[in-house]
Amino acid sequence: MNKLTIIKVGGKIVEEEASLTRLLADFSSIAGAKILVHGGGRSATKLAEQLGIESKMVNGRRITDEATLQVVTMVYGGLINKNIVVKLQAKGIDALGLTGADMNTVLSVKRPVESIDYGFVGDVSRVNGTFLSNLLKQGVVPVLAPLTHDGMGHLLNTNADTIAGEVAKEMASYFDVQLIFCFEKKGVLIDENDDESVISQLNPELFHQYMEEGIIQGGMIPKLENAFEAIHAGVKEVVITQASEIHLGKGTFIRL
Amino acid sequence: MNKLTIIKVGGKIVEEEASLTRLLADFSSIAGAKILVHGGGRSATKLAEQLGIESKMVNGRRITDEATLQVVTMVYGGLINKNIVVKLQAKGIDALGLTGADMNTVLSVKRPVESIDYGFVGDVSRVNGTFLSNLLKQGVVPVLAPLTHDGMGHLLNTNADTIAGEVAKEMASYFDVQLIFCFEKKGVLIDENDDESVISQLNPELFHQYMEEGIIQGGMIPKLENAFEAIHAGVKEVVITQASEIHLGKGTFIRL
Repeated sequence: MNKLTIIKVGGKIVEEEASLTRLLADFSSIAGAKILVHGGGRSATKLAEQLGIESKMVNGRRITDEATLQVVTMVYGGLINKNIVVKLQAKGIDALGLTGADMNTVLSVKRPVESIDYGFVGDVSRVNGTFLSNLLKQGVVPVLAPLTHDGMGHLLNTNADTIAGEVAKEMASYFDVQLIFCFEKKGVLIDENDDESVISQLNPELFHQYMEEGIIQGGMIPKLENAFEAIHAGVKEVVITQASEIHLGKGTFIRL
Repeated sequence: MNKLTIIKVGGKIVEEEASLTRLLADFSSIAGAKILVHGGGRSATKLAEQLGIESKMVNGRRITDEATLQVVTMVYGGLINKNIVVKLQAKGIDALGLTGADMNTVLSVKRPVESIDYGFVGDVSRVNGTFLSNLLKQGVVPVLAPLTHDGMGHLLNTNADTIAGEVAKEMASYFDVQLIFCFEKKGVLIDENDDESVISQLNPELFHQYMEEGIIQGGMIPKLENAFEAIHAGVKEVVITQASEIHLGKGTFIRL
């Protein structure tokens, strides 16, 4: 199978002109089929603020009421997505910006209200692998905004990490998928105070060992659990690295 | 050749929930290949106002400075475009929202500064007919936002009527194109005070006769000149009609 690189970049990288320019140069240099998944939370928070809409976060997730859904539709689906697409086009890359609604790319289910009502937030139920695969075979580079839809006329806000993971799992039937999560550090660190102490390789055994030893803890645990879930679902490799190093083959490499 | 219907709807229709719902129901009932081109000026003006950005209009055209470009990117490319796409998907229509930057659909040139500096406004230079034609053959329904790009990394604001006209002309090599402009009236009127006095057919001779008689005047003249330009470039038929009548075969039919 051919290789497919899926890169997820968070808000800060794509929201600042200098870091975006560098990211897109690095992204362009990656050979073969590729998909970019982006966030944009800071810009959404900023626009919401300017419009007098309060941004409510619970466990790092945005509570998405109707006004907030409009804000993220404008920011993720419009501003950030199209800014990336237009800049990739200028590099001769045939980018196509997509929300989950476009061509039914990512279908989701509105998260049921349990202890918390997240509002218009969607949990991914199906990725349109046939469509994405056809695009990639034509040399198109999909740029995915963190918005999905429920198939009943509603856009839903979905975490970009989740979209990247679900797309990677689906695309594993079509490609040898490498999924790269951009991170503020150079990878998973042995010593959180030493930015150079990157764990170069992780497999399930090492992961459990590092957790038992307390080396890997906190927010890194669910991130790595997601990575291993992708690996177990057929993704060849997950990499956690700094945005500036996506093209260098550096970072923490997660394999079976 | 197969038939292609291109429908251009202005802001008001797509910005209000009730009229949008009706429009999309009518649009869905049109058989065969189709493209929807939308505006959204009122929502852009409203968002600009909320953000304290002054909307400057000259001859009915928006002066697009950098802040305004961000507003229209959010409103046209995000809010309105995705709202249409998600609602068409719910009707089982495989809609794909596009700005001119996506897949290089509509390339333009920044309008040169003469007496007026329109800012980030683009005049269409090339429509990617091959791409649109491939989409249509796959049963996809493109939904075009009134944004183009210059191929050098900049989005540009382009009038939706112009995009519809240019896309129609390009697609005339691939399809028998019918271009429908939605209008606030039922068509071109003989008597502007009588909404039922629709001129059912216009050709170049009749157009000139009505102009000489003063029956067709003002803003309708450039609109019809554009229509005849499309016809002369190979578009089979241009229709000027009310949004609520797009599926009824009513309005003013413009042919050679």
